[in-house]
This record gives sequence, C-alpha cells and structure tokens, in this order.
Amino acid sequence: MTRCSEACAAVQPVDAGAAAAAAELQERLTKPRGSLGRVESVGERLCSIAGTCPPPVPEPVVVAVFAGDHGVVDAGVTPWPQDVTAQMVANFCAGGAAINVIARQVGADVVVVDVGVAASIDVGGPMLLRRNVRRATRNLAVEAAMTPAEVDAALDVGVEVAAGSVRRGARLLVTGDMGIGNTTSSAALIAALTGRPPAEVTGRGTGIDDEMLARKTRVVEEALARLRPGASPVQVAAEVGGLEIAALAGYVIGGAAARVPVVVDGVIAGAAALLAVAVCPDAAGYLLAGHRSSEPGASAALAHLGLEPILDLQLRLGEGTGAALAVPVIQTAARILREMATFDSAGVTDKGDPRS
Amino acid sequence: MTRCSEACAAVQPVDAGAAAAAAELQERLTKPRGSLGRVESVGERLCSIAGTCPPPVPEPVVVAVFAGDHGVVDAGVTPWPQDVTAQMVANFCAGGAAINVIARQVGADVVVVDVGVAASIDVGGPMLLRRNVRRATRNLAVEAAMTPAEVDAALDVGVEVAAGSVRRGARLLVTGDMGIGNTTSSAALIAALTGRPPAEVTGRGTGIDDEMLARKTRVVEEALARLRPGASPVQVAAEVGGLEIAALAGYVIGGAAARVPVVVDGVIAGAAALLAVAVCPDAAGYLLAGHRSSEPGASAALAHLGLEPILDLQLRLGEGTGAALAVPVIQTAARILREMATFDSAGVTDKGDPRS
Repeated sequence: MTRCSEACAAVQPVDAGAAAAAAELQERLTKPRGSLGRVESVGERLCSIAGTCPPPVPEPVVVAVFAGDHGVVDAGVTPWPQDVTAQMVANFCAGGAAINVIARQVGADVVVVDVGVAASIDVGGPMLLRRNVRRATRNLAVEAAMTPAEVDAALDVGVEVAAGSVRRGARLLVTGDMGIGNTTSSAALIAALTGRPPAEVTGRGTGIDDEMLARKTRVVEEALARLRPGASPVQVAAEVGGLEIAALAGYVIGGAAARVPVVVDGVIAGAAALLAVAVCPDAAGYLLAGHRSSEPGASAALAHLGLEPILDLQLRLGEGTGAALAVPVIQTAARILREMATFDSAGVTDKGDPRS
Repeated sequence: MTRCSEACAAVQPVDAGAAAAAAELQERLTKPRGSLGRVESVGERLCSIAGTCPPPVPEPVVVAVFAGDHGVVDAGVTPWPQDVTAQMVANFCAGGAAINVIARQVGADVVVVDVGVAASIDVGGPMLLRRNVRRATRNLAVEAAMTPAEVDAALDVGVEVAAGSVRRGARLLVTGDMGIGNTTSSAALIAALTGRPPAEVTGRGTGIDDEMLARKTRVVEEALARLRPGASPVQVAAEVGGLEIAALAGYVIGGAAARVPVVVDGVIAGAAALLAVAVCPDAAGYLLAGHRSSEPGASAALAHLGLEPILDLQLRLGEGTGAALAVPVIQTAARILREMATFDSAGVTDKGDPRS
C-alpha cells in the first residue's frame, strides 16, 4: 500500500453540521445578513473542514512549491528554456521570487520541493526538500510522461510534505508549482479529468503566440488520444501528467488526511486538485480556491470541483502566488466567526428584532 | 479659507514618470511579463502617488470609520432603526464589529469619528474622535440635508482626521462609514455627480424589499429635482449628502494633500470619493478601489473615477471592510517592486534573452 493510499483511507468526509452552525452564527453577527458575501461561505467551509464552529484561525501557513521538469518542452510548447526551472528553484531558495515576497506579506513559510527538476540543484538550505523522483518527465507528445510507479512515488512525496508540514505546526497548506512546460501537462490532465475539449482548456501559459498555442493544443489532443477508455486516474497522470503535479495531488490528499484546508492556486494546482479528487473523492471538501487564474484550464478545473475562487486579479504566474494572496481573506473568514459580536452580545438592535 | 480648501491647494498631481518606471521595472522581475495582473497596476499607482519607484510599503494603516445619521430615515428608506448607528459606534469602540476583526487581521488601526450621530455617544476611549457637526442631517426627502456651512465643517473634520493620522505615522488611509440611511444619500450623490439615472444607482443597501426600493428611488429622484443646474459640489452635498460622507470626502483630500494613498470601500466611500474629486480634481490620483461592492452605485462611482476594484467578494457591509481586506494586496504590490529579484540579479534566463 502506498503512502498516498494510506492517507486517502484516512480522509474523513467534511462536517456539514459544522457548516450549518456557521451559517446560523453568521445570521446573528452584528452586520446585515449575508453582507460579508464570499467571506461567509469561506467561513462555512472552514467549519466543515475543522468539524467545529467557530473554526480555528488557519495558521501557521506553509506554501509548498513543487518543482519538476517536462519532456514535452522538446515539442516546442514554450519559449522558456528548461534551465529556468532550476534557476527559479535557486531564486525561491534565495527569497527573490514573487511567492517569497507574497509569503512574507501574509506570514507564510515557503518550502521548495525538487520532485522532478532536470538539472541538479546546487543550492540548499533548510527550505529545499530533495525528493527527486526522476530528472524530468518523458515527452508526452510522443510517449507516456511517467510510469505508474513514478506517479505513485510523486504522490507519496506530496503526502509526505503535507504530513511533515502539519507535524511541524502548519494549519493551512498553500499549493505552489514551478516547471517549464507544466501548463501543457496541466491542460491535458484537465481535459482528461473534466471531459472538456483540449482547445477549451489549453491556454497561453507564461505567454505564447498563436502558432505555439496551436502546436500546444495539438500536442494535448494527440497525447489524450493514446489514453484507453476507463484509464484509472494514476494511468491518466502517467500518460500526460507531471511529477510536480502528481506531488501536488498527494499534498492535497495529505492535507485532507490531516483535516487541514488546502488552498488551490492556478491551472497547475487546479489540475493537481482534479487528480487528487479523482484518486480520493473525499479530499474535495478540504479545498479552497485562492483565485481565478487567467489561464482557461484553471476555471474549468474549479468549475468541475465546484469551487468559487476568492480573488480574481488576472494572475497567471503560478508558484502559489494567487493562493497565498488569498490567505488573509481565509483567515479573516475564521476570525469573523470567532471574534465578531452578536446583536445580543453587543446590544445592537437587529433589523428583524421585535424590540425595534 | 476652509481647512479643506487649504488641503486641496496642497494636493500635487501624481507622478506619471514614477508609474512608468514601475512598469519598466516589472518587465525585468523574475516572472513572465504581466503575470502579476492587477498587482502590477496597483504597484504602478503606488509609485505615481509616492513619486518614486520602488514605492515605500504603505504602512502603518489606519481605517477611519466616519459615523453620521440621516434625517431621510423618516421617509421609510430602511428597515433599521436610527439607534443602530450609535450602537454600532459602541460596537466599533469595543472591537466587536466586522471592521475591527478585519483590521486586526491586516494590522490596521481603527479610529471612529462621530461627525453626525443623532444620539449622544456614551462610550469613549482613544479610538473615538468626537467631531459632531450636527445630530443627523435633515430629511433630504423634503428639504436640504445640510447647509453649505455644515458641509464645509464636515469636510474639514475629514481633512483633520487624515492629517492627524498621517502625522501619527499612517501611510495608508482606509475609508470607513457607518450611518443608517446613508445608502440613500450616497445614491443621490452618485446620480448627481455621475449623471446616471437614480434608478440605476439606487440599491438595496443593507437589504430592503421591492416596495422599499421603489420608495427609496423616488426619494432620490425628488431630492435631485430640487438641485439647480450648475450647483457646486458643496451645494450638491448640502442638498442630498451626509455628514459622514462629506467628512470622508475631506479625508480623501487630506490623504491626497499628504501624498498618502486612500483606499475606497463601497458605495458610501465611492460617493465620498466622487465628491472629493469634484471639489479637488487632483485628489483622484491618490485613490485605490478596495473592492466591488454588490451595491450598484458603487460600480457607477468607480467607473466614473476610472478605478478598477481589487477585490470582488460580494460584500455590502460598509465600515471599510472591503477596503481593509484589500490592504495585503496593496502592500504586496509595493513589496513586489521592492523585494523581487530581476532576471539579471537572480541569474534567471529571460524568455526574450538572446543568451537563451
């Protein structure tokens, strides 16, 4: 039994009763009913995850940035050289990337997980976890990206990172990614797992022109054509997935097993969340969508998962940036339930109060 | 000369050169170009306000909640009793309202300004500023809400609060409001200052039924019919405005005079921002829109001011809640420009780099 299957078996369904208690409490807080909009629905979800109302404030926060390379870069789907993945890992470790800046703003720790970087990483430090399963996937344009055993190994890395973060105190897990070529793999996974046509979910990633987008879409279509009907989620991931994407799926399952909310970032994390839920359906209740990425596959993944994003800032950077930026709103949702006065406790007359 | 006219005379146009420098710097940071979306445009605005790139991180943060009552409650435009304004002032001072919770989350201080509450406020404490100009406006359904002298006095209160906050260290000002009946006054101001029809900008406020909405819209229409063509902004505010709205307009102008960014909350702050810009056009450059309130007048005000909101969480609470929730995004925008590595400094290969 893999570590991931053990974690999945430990995932409990979220608690609808606690969510209902949150909805009831929000009616009594000193504000017009429903006037905190999406903050209220996030609060209900935090209660359903924690199994109690009010929920704990979800902190400390960890952002895990899973890094992996993709053989499909050989098919000409991105203008960025593969070296950039390892260079960005070094940038994360030096604190100079966007996710480092945002993590400092919101009080989150960053860990970087080399689960599939092609180059050897010559930086170190305590924030880098060396868990390389293989040095880049195979080229999904011409063959299966991974073996099922490699997918399982990557899933297990993610489970381990989540479990380790929670063991060290984390109570909110943010999904991050780095991998040149990974929007191609994500688009393929999203198409396979939602049933949407590749052209609808394949986007411009970090910025490509029409010709490259047409090639990228064709690559996705051809790879999906190799999938047998009834392929298992792990077989789908092996055919078209990525090491960092599978690891992120394991991270989602590991968070769910620990009853800790997991914040989904953009298109890569969206693909990973779909994979996680395909592998372990009860994990779905532990997800929060940090933002609506401008990448079309991200919206398709969120719609399939029934998630409404918290932010919509036209981000398309990955690394966990959009999910991390949503952290203050998520923590606010918990604090509202914990700290706000009720009409009764504050002596404020309610609109519907017969005394008024 | 009023304090507000002095402040307005001190407002300098924002610095387009610093915004251009920010746009140029963002091209060199280690991320795909434009991939931080709205965060990048916020960063450019912070530079134009500060007159330098990178801009300082806008902190400490003050939320000023201006409270006032409205004679128009006699016209049956809200189901909430007027007492709630004073009760909520007490709730703010006790730390139990939504804005207190959000301010604690984002590290902001709250000050509460009684500029026009009907009841006498029997709580105190250092966070309450007693600046009552009169105990509620007159009923705008039947007569001018204020005299021009009362508008000027309220504007001056807002200027003073902004100047005092900046003197004590604040570098980001958040607009908050409390006042039963104030969405009626705001709708009238927004209609008058944008030229939009009252029915388009009058909303359900804290939650009213169709019949009450029809009455509220009629009240706005009839009040606006009393305005003479060519009325000055202060005359418009006197006819249909509110004491807390005029004070918020002064607060915007005071922030602009001190070169400090001011975050606009929902429909009340939107009306106040329109009034501020009508009185003092150069103040417009110092505004940031925290969120898109679900109140229709708020979107009309932001469109007229050329502002894109940062958040869209279906909030309709006021108090500064939506603006305060946007603070971490605004601070992130500054930090991105200050703290992110460039392609050169981090040794990351750029997509467009000839070395790649």
